[in-house]
Amino acid sequence: MMWGIIATWTMAYDGIKEAGEILQAAGNAKDALEKAIIDVENGPYYKSVGYGGLPNKEMIVELDAAFMDGDTFDVGAVGAIQDFANPISIARALSTKKVNNILVGEGAAKYAAQHGFERKTMLTERAKIHYDNKIEQLKTEDIKPYDGHDTVGMVCLDQGNSMAAGTSTSGLFMKEPGRVGDSPICGSGFYVDSKVGGATATGLGEDLMKGCISYEIVSLMKRGMSPQEAVDKAVGDLNRELISRRSQAGDISVVAMNNQGQWGVATNIEGFSFAVATADQPATVYVCENHEDGTTYAEATEAWLNNYYTTRKAPLKRLK
Amino acid sequence: MMWGIIATWTMAYDGIKEAGEILQAAGNAKDALEKAIIDVENGPYYKSVGYGGLPNKEMIVELDAAFMDGDTFDVGAVGAIQDFANPISIARALSTKKVNNILVGEGAAKYAAQHGFERKTMLTERAKIHYDNKIEQLKTEDIKPYDGHDTVGMVCLDQGNSMAAGTSTSGLFMKEPGRVGDSPICGSGFYVDSKVGGATATGLGEDLMKGCISYEIVSLMKRGMSPQEAVDKAVGDLNRELISRRSQAGDISVVAMNNQGQWGVATNIEGFSFAVATADQPATVYVCENHEDGTTYAEATEAWLNNYYTTRKAPLKRLK
Repeated sequence: MMWGIIATWTMAYDGIKEAGEILQAAGNAKDALEKAIIDVENGPYYKSVGYGGLPNKEMIVELDAAFMDGDTFDVGAVGAIQDFANPISIARALSTKKVNNILVGEGAAKYAAQHGFERKTMLTERAKIHYDNKIEQLKTEDIKPYDGHDTVGMVCLDQGNSMAAGTSTSGLFMKEPGRVGDSPICGSGFYVDSKVGGATATGLGEDLMKGCISYEIVSLMKRGMSPQEAVDKAVGDLNRELISRRSQAGDISVVAMNNQGQWGVATNIEGFSFAVATADQPATVYVCENHEDGTTYAEATEAWLNNYYTTRKAPLKRLK
Repeated sequence: MMWGIIATWTMAYDGIKEAGEILQAAGNAKDALEKAIIDVENGPYYKSVGYGGLPNKEMIVELDAAFMDGDTFDVGAVGAIQDFANPISIARALSTKKVNNILVGEGAAKYAAQHGFERKTMLTERAKIHYDNKIEQLKTEDIKPYDGHDTVGMVCLDQGNSMAAGTSTSGLFMKEPGRVGDSPICGSGFYVDSKVGGATATGLGEDLMKGCISYEIVSLMKRGMSPQEAVDKAVGDLNRELISRRSQAGDISVVAMNNQGQWGVATNIEGFSFAVATADQPATVYVCENHEDGTTYAEATEAWLNNYYTTRKAPLKRLK
């Protein structure tokens, strides 16, 4: 029986490995996906998701997350929520309601508190140092204040042919208070239809939503494309349109999986990585290269992975 | 030279009439559209948009709005913003920024205050009576708390072949605090591409976003369909999918216009109305009928319009 889970970025590896065990044991896609995203949210060293995520310009961590059920199209999401441990679980709970599926800001926090979700101070000492250092750098260097937009997004297929998708992110570092990116937006940050497949995106949310990229990928798969054909076309088209109309395109990276467990990946940047596990292959991290004629990828070497984890966990030095 | 503007609901009539004059005089689509939506936001008798809009379950008016430039794909939006007179203007201002285009809740209010947008108490005496009466009714009657989801959405084409789209709404009456619907969500509540056309939706936001309906309509027009063919297919498909997967479909009503000024309308409810003006026809209100095989519409009669305005403005009686 086929099953599979694919996720953006190396940080998803541990989570999808665990999810793979759930799926192998005939667990359902929604449980496996939620568990895998919780794992990333709880990791203190991933500075773009959940605990340890980088704060907004007022040094407050505001989180976006979404959950979608590919059978029913149930969607739930939170935007700009502060100080709850696992936004993905709140999003999943919201997805089961008939209305009021997307809650933002204080309203989202109120719902989460009233429903017993775990409160947690999401700003870490490490994130504070990142913030203070960025403030120092901005005084003297001509750099962009925004980076660190590595959303975790996942698409999951279980042995019962049900699919789910989800996202979680702290969004742009130094963002404006209340800023919401593509991650909680159905069709942009994620989309899944169990009869077809699903897709999820990471990069500059403000540009990803201009092309409803996740919906577009699923739409292309519905019209007969393989996941790889669909992501190649969708990323190529959006990148081209953005450059043609705006002179530049923000970062776009996507992963997709169809309801047969086949998958695809495409990016317009250097350095995108992703993780995948299916009934046919153990959990694996791949590192992408972005070429003129498309995206290639290769299994991450042990040296690459060691470097990845070492740099993530390296002690941070205050600039001042 | 062709120009045109189409909008959901009769309440848009005065605004699109004014916009038509701007467009006729070779004004641009963005200015015309913003002006037309401001007109609806300012009207005290429209209980689902702007001033006079119905409040959330805590008796607080929270507003969603969005603005999209079909030339550049610039998108701006606010979600769950309180007490600013014209959310559409804040959304337009946000659309001109490179990032931080969607702001929600207090963050949105902070941005608006810092940029000098007009503050206004958006809860009217009339809306308070609606609220109090609903609370009374809910004590004894088995009625749904949610209604009044008549978002104003518009698509506009100017003589220079530029297009714009926008939405504004107070969302579901008695909604949860922080609830965001489809209106500020690119691809669901609105989408526009000046090279193709645009679409906008009204109804149950939580269901509209399950099919990214506005993006889907533009995508169908891009693949060669007329606006009417595109809206018929998109509404028919989404309605069918929702019923098949969820046993029921929420209200779905859409209008679309292509970059030739041709337009289309489709709905799955009784009682949807819309307003349109183009170089070829003066501002006109149409009332739809929903049939098994599609949507028909007829020009609103004077009697229908008189009844519409009379009921909107009729004195409200407190139940208690």
